[in-house]
Amino acid sequence: VDTTAQPAVHYFEDFSEGRTFASDEIEVSLDDIVRFAREFDPQPFHLDAQAGRASFFGAQVGSGWHTAALTMRLLVESDIAIAGGIVGAGGEIKWPAALLPGDRIHVEIEVIATRPLKSRADMGLITTRTRTVNQSGTAVQELVANLFVPRRDAALGGNAAVGS
Amino acid sequence: VDTTAQPAVHYFEDFSEGRTFASDEIEVSLDDIVRFAREFDPQPFHLDAQAGRASFFGAQVGSGWHTAALTMRLLVESDIAIAGGIVGAGGEIKWPAALLPGDRIHVEIEVIATRPLKSRADMGLITTRTRTVNQSGTAVQELVANLFVPRRDAALGGNAAVGS
Repeated sequence: VDTTAQPAVHYFEDFSEGRTFASDEIEVSLDDIVRFAREFDPQPFHLDAQAGRASFFGAQVGSGWHTAALTMRLLVESDIAIAGGIVGAGGEIKWPAALLPGDRIHVEIEVIATRPLKSRADMGLITTRTRTVNQSGTAVQELVANLFVPRRDAALGGNAAVGS
Repeated sequence: VDTTAQPAVHYFEDFSEGRTFASDEIEVSLDDIVRFAREFDPQPFHLDAQAGRASFFGAQVGSGWHTAALTMRLLVESDIAIAGGIVGAGGEIKWPAALLPGDRIHVEIEVIATRPLKSRADMGLITTRTRTVNQSGTAVQELVANLFVPRRDAALGGNAAVGS
C-alpha cells in the first residue's frame, strides 16, 4: 500500500450527470447541538429538553443551520475533492426531518447538471444534490447547489490542447 | 419608561405582505471566521490569509455557512419575534458577496407572502426575504424562506371567534 498516495482531485472535466460521491459518518451529540444553538440559534427548543417537548418539534432538536454547517464539513471530507475547494454561490435547502441528539449523519452527493461558464473560460459550474442522511436512512437535509469548478486544461496552462 | 414591558410577539394575523423587520448590527472578527471554519468548513481560503489571496476569492473570507448561521442569530435577535420561535422548513440562499473579517452585519427582513396552512388550522406560513447587509450596504446573503407561524386565535383557545 502506497501511503503517500494523494486522494484524487477533480476538475470540471471529471464531473458528469449522475456521478455520485459520499462521506463517512459523524455523530452529533446533545452537547454539540446546544453549543451551536447558544452561539447561532438560541431558541428554547434547541437549548432545553422540556422546551423542545413543548415546541412545534415535540423534542429537543438541532438547528437546521447546524445541519447545514455539518453538511459542509462532510462535503469537505467527502471524496468529491474539487480542485481549488468547494465554492458555491448559494443553493436551495430543505430540512425534511429534524437533527436529533445522537444522530449519526453522512452525505450522499449526486451531480445533476454541468455547464461551462461563459463569463470565465477557466471554470465550469456543476449542480449537485447533497442529501444529509441519518442512521435510519432518513434525509435531515437536502441541498441543491451550484459549485464553481476549475477546468483541468486551464489549470495546466490555459491551453486546451494540453488538457484532458 | 416601563422597563418591564415585553417585546411584542407576532402571530400569523400580524404579518402582511410588505411588512419589514430588522436587527441590530454585530461585528465578525477574523478569529470568529477561523473558529467557525475549523469546525465546519476547514478549507484553506477560510483558515489562512495567504491561501485566501491565492484562492477564487482573492482574500481570506468567511464560510457562506457562517454567514447563514450568523443570519439566524440576527433573526432571533430581530424584532420579527414570532410566537413560538422562528421555524423554517428550508429556503433559497445566495451569497452575492463574501463575508470579510471585521464586517459589521445586520439583517433586513421583508414579508413577501402569507398563506393559511390547510394541513394545520392552527398555523400559517409566511414567506420572508432576509438580506444580511454589511457596513457598506452590500448584501452578503439573501435568504428567501417559508416560516411556520401560529395563529393568534388558536393560541387563545382554538376558537376563531376569540381571535383578532
